[in-house]
Amino acid sequence: MKTAIYEKAGKITVAEIEKPSLQAKDDVIIKVVRACVCGSDLWRYDENVPHEHGDANSGHEAIGIVEEVGEDITTLVPGDFVIVPFTHGCGHCDACRTGFDGTCDNHPGYQNFGNNYQSQYIRFHYGNWALVKVPGQPSDYSEGMIKSLLTLADVMPTGYHAARVADVKPGDKIVVIGDGAVGQCAVIAAKMRGASQIIMMSRHADRQQMALESGATAVVAERGEEGIAKVREILGGGADAALECVGTEASIDQALGVLHNGGRIGFVGVPHYSNHALGSTFSTNIIIGGGAASVTTYVKDFLLDAVLKGQINPGRVFTQTYSLDNIDQAYKDMANRKTIKAMVTVD
Amino acid sequence: MKTAIYEKAGKITVAEIEKPSLQAKDDVIIKVVRACVCGSDLWRYDENVPHEHGDANSGHEAIGIVEEVGEDITTLVPGDFVIVPFTHGCGHCDACRTGFDGTCDNHPGYQNFGNNYQSQYIRFHYGNWALVKVPGQPSDYSEGMIKSLLTLADVMPTGYHAARVADVKPGDKIVVIGDGAVGQCAVIAAKMRGASQIIMMSRHADRQQMALESGATAVVAERGEEGIAKVREILGGGADAALECVGTEASIDQALGVLHNGGRIGFVGVPHYSNHALGSTFSTNIIIGGGAASVTTYVKDFLLDAVLKGQINPGRVFTQTYSLDNIDQAYKDMANRKTIKAMVTVD
Repeated sequence: MKTAIYEKAGKITVAEIEKPSLQAKDDVIIKVVRACVCGSDLWRYDENVPHEHGDANSGHEAIGIVEEVGEDITTLVPGDFVIVPFTHGCGHCDACRTGFDGTCDNHPGYQNFGNNYQSQYIRFHYGNWALVKVPGQPSDYSEGMIKSLLTLADVMPTGYHAARVADVKPGDKIVVIGDGAVGQCAVIAAKMRGASQIIMMSRHADRQQMALESGATAVVAERGEEGIAKVREILGGGADAALECVGTEASIDQALGVLHNGGRIGFVGVPHYSNHALGSTFSTNIIIGGGAASVTTYVKDFLLDAVLKGQINPGRVFTQTYSLDNIDQAYKDMANRKTIKAMVTVD
Repeated sequence: MKTAIYEKAGKITVAEIEKPSLQAKDDVIIKVVRACVCGSDLWRYDENVPHEHGDANSGHEAIGIVEEVGEDITTLVPGDFVIVPFTHGCGHCDACRTGFDGTCDNHPGYQNFGNNYQSQYIRFHYGNWALVKVPGQPSDYSEGMIKSLLTLADVMPTGYHAARVADVKPGDKIVVIGDGAVGQCAVIAAKMRGASQIIMMSRHADRQQMALESGATAVVAERGEEGIAKVREILGGGADAALECVGTEASIDQALGVLHNGGRIGFVGVPHYSNHALGSTFSTNIIIGGGAASVTTYVKDFLLDAVLKGQINPGRVFTQTYSLDNIDQAYKDMANRKTIKAMVTVD
C-alpha cells in the first residue's frame, strides 16, 4: 500500500509498504477515506531533527471504512464508517471514566507512536472502544460534512479539550491563542460552552475572518504586551480563561498575561517551553490544565451529534485538498501558511 | 503596644512599639483577641535568612474587636467582633467577583506584607469588604468555638481553597499531602464537598488520629514511591485529586504521583520547588491550581455558618495555647512538631 514517509526535514515522500494486518485481538484494519496534516506534524517537517527513514508515523487523523476486525472487537464490523482518533482509550480506566481518554491509564503515551494515518490502510490498536462509528457511508455525506467529520479525529476535540480543561462556562470572557485549525476549533468550543466574549489573537485576515464566522466576537492582531493591553481594553479587565493552542514560550506568556487573577488556562499546544515552573502561578491563582484531547469521549457524547445536526461547522478549517501522492505539497503549504489545514484524499 | 518581632532565626521576641493609627480612609484598627502561628511563619523562623530587626510582619491570622474605622468604612462599627483574614480583597474586581479574593486584582501580593497580627493591635488595610463580622462578642462563645473562629482567618479557608481549585466533587477519591493545620482543614473541606475516600499522608500518630476524626477514611505513613503504591492499593487505582499543603519538591512529586491521568492538584503550600516546568503535565492531563485562599468569600458564603452551626470543628488544630509574651515558645513548639498549631492569647 502507499504511505507517506518522512524523508528529511522539508521533504515527505510516498512509498509502497506492506499493507498492515491484524496482530492483536483488539486491532482493527481500516481503509482510509480521508487523512490530513496536523500542525504538530509540522514540528518535525520544519525542524532539522534527524529521523530514521521509515520512522514515519506520518499523520494521526483519518476517517475510513473498517476492513477487518480482531476477534475481541464487539463494537464494529467490516464496512462500518468510522472516525479514526489519534487516541486509543480503553474506555474503563480511571482516566477514561473521568473523560480523559486521550491519556488513557492503560495505554499511556500511546497517542505518540504507532500512528501512520497518511496511508491507504491503518492498523488501529485498541480499537474496541476508541473508534467511533458514523451512520451510513461516506457517499451519504456532502464534501462539507466529510470535512467536518474528519476534524473529529483530532482538531475539533482538541480545541474542545482546551475549553473543557479551562472550564469555560456560560458568560465567560475567553481569549484564544493560536489561529490554526485547533485555535479555530477552540473558538467553536468556547461558543458551544456559552462564552459571552471570545477574542481570537491573529494577524492573518483569512484566519481572523474564519474565527469571526465561528463565533469570535473580536480579533486582536497585536502580540506581547501590546496584545495583552488590547485584550484588557476590549474586555474591560482580564479574561476568565485563555485557550492556548500553539505551545511556544510566547503563547504561554500571552495566555498568562491576558487573565485576571484566578483565571484559567487550557493548553493543547504540545509544550515547547520550560520558562515557568509548576507552582509559579501561586501568586496569581491561575489554574492550568492541558494534554491530549479526549477524542472518543467528546465525539461519542456530543461532537458527532453537533456536526451531523449542522450545529457546528469545523470542516471549514480545511482550506485545501491534496491527493496522497501530492502530500509533500500539503505539508509545504501548511508550513508556509498558504493553507490553514490540508485535507488528503486517499484512494 | 506589644508586638512579636523577628529577632533572628530561631528567636522571636516581644517589643513595645507605637500603637497603629488610621492612615487611609479604608483602614480599620482592631484590638486583637487571639492570634496564632502559621506553618508559613516557620519558613523564616527555621531558615537562617537574614531579616532586618523589626522587619517583623509576624503573623497574619487573628480575631479581634474593631477599635476604630476610617471614614470610608461602611460595613463595621467600633465594638464589632471580626475575623481578620490574611487577605485584603476589594470585593469587586474580576478576581474577587470570581471568588479569588486572596489574589485580588486591585491589591496584588498584598497578603505578603503589611500584616503584623501577633500584636495587641492591627492596622487592617482595605477593610471595608475583607473583614468578616461575627455575631455577638467573644465572651458569647466557648473556647472551642473561639478556636474554630480563629481558623477562619487562614487555615480553614486555605484548606478549603485546595479542595476548591482541585474541583473536589461528590464521590471523588482524595489524597491530602501535609498533616499540619492546613492539611487537617483540607480533610474537612474534602468531606464538606462530598469526597467518598480521603487519604491523609502522615507519619505522626496524633495527626493521623485528628485527620480520621475530621473525615479521613485512611492514613498512609509511607512516602515517595512506597507511599504512592500504598495509595493506589487502597484506592484500587489513582486518586481523582491531591491537595498539596506543604510546598516542597517531595510533596509536589507525591501529589503528581498519586493521581490517575486527568487528575487534579490543588496546591496551597507556598511553592519551594521548581523541579517541574509549567506544561510538564501535558502527558498526564493533570490540572493544577493553587495560591492564596479566598478567605473572605469562603467565610462569608459558608464557612462561618458551618462553624457556628457546629457542622465542622477546625479549631481542633490548636493543640496548645500561649500568651503573647511567651510567643517564642509557640514558634519553637511548632517548629519541633510538639504542637500542630499554636494559639496566642492577647490581652
